[in-house]
Amino acid sequence: MKLYDAPRTPNPRRVRIFLHEKGISVPAEHLDLADGDHRAAQYRRLNPYGLVPTLVLDSGEAISESIAICRYFEALHPEPALFGAGALDIARVEMWNRRMEFHLYQPVAHAFRHLHPGMKDFEVPQVAEWGEANKPRVLATLRLLDGELAGREFIAGDRFTVADITALVAIDFLKPARIAVPEELGHLARWYAAVSARPSAAA
Amino acid sequence: MKLYDAPRTPNPRRVRIFLHEKGISVPAEHLDLADGDHRAAQYRRLNPYGLVPTLVLDSGEAISESIAICRYFEALHPEPALFGAGALDIARVEMWNRRMEFHLYQPVAHAFRHLHPGMKDFEVPQVAEWGEANKPRVLATLRLLDGELAGREFIAGDRFTVADITALVAIDFLKPARIAVPEELGHLARWYAAVSARPSAAA
Repeated sequence: MKLYDAPRTPNPRRVRIFLHEKGISVPAEHLDLADGDHRAAQYRRLNPYGLVPTLVLDSGEAISESIAICRYFEALHPEPALFGAGALDIARVEMWNRRMEFHLYQPVAHAFRHLHPGMKDFEVPQVAEWGEANKPRVLATLRLLDGELAGREFIAGDRFTVADITALVAIDFLKPARIAVPEELGHLARWYAAVSARPSAAA
Repeated sequence: MKLYDAPRTPNPRRVRIFLHEKGISVPAEHLDLADGDHRAAQYRRLNPYGLVPTLVLDSGEAISESIAICRYFEALHPEPALFGAGALDIARVEMWNRRMEFHLYQPVAHAFRHLHPGMKDFEVPQVAEWGEANKPRVLATLRLLDGELAGREFIAGDRFTVADITALVAIDFLKPARIAVPEELGHLARWYAAVSARPSAAA
């Protein structure tokens, strides 16, 4: 088994945090995206979209999409249940993980990829107007989250889940995207300090 | 329990097809999006993003995000297993469902929302260049799918899953987005005819 990883990229970090929380270690190979490793024919055979990460099983089968890789390990090692346990908890975690993906992570990614000069060879065409259109969406979700976190410890309830991982990675992605978290969001700041202090955050 | 639904919109259709495949019936209330029902304060309390569908449980708790609603029913009624069964199958289904969402459904939705004149009050600002940039991404995934479907019956393996539901709904979304499926994609056409003929497709 091997995990194709790339340092300083947000999606592989989601998987690394997840594995650390599970106490699972997987051999990794680091791709150099600046060097175009992800566009090489050999990697494209494993992942036709040329994205990271990809998990290659001992059978040679390749699983891509960060959350698919996480679900594979959740099924093999159910504890702690980072996707929830029981129908209602599973639904809450899925809802919040998806809200964090579609209304926080993706808008941050669009702002970064369409506005940052260093992304011009990665996002073709860069559409600056679309990048800018995403910034208010990011801020709206940060404010929504702050209100939610006034009433509970973690994003999907009273336990740490994959929704916290997605949100943490998305919020750390704000810095390269040059979007500031409004200072008045105190509940969000409390949550961010707590999840950032977990050993997994450094994975 | 009540499902807030909206006719002729793709995400609620995913849930309707899923429930039909499971043999589950849920009372529904139809929102009129043209009339702004989804923007009313009462609905925003259930779903702060004003999106459809939303499932309201007997407790009053609201679950949104189509796939979160589907996972709730999968946990309560595991058969047939539309999200896969066993770690490897679960990972494959999640990978393909996400590929269909991120590389087919979302690009079709961006093309539709940013280019269709009828969407100007729903997608603000409409960025035509971004809409156009998504069209080649749609075609690339249709070609990828055609190659995959040369080797197996359904998108994530030899059984119908939620990945087929997402792909079917995305492909039917091509028509309002004014994107044509290339005629030479015969394997895709065979799959499309088969999934469209299932009784659930009319749900």
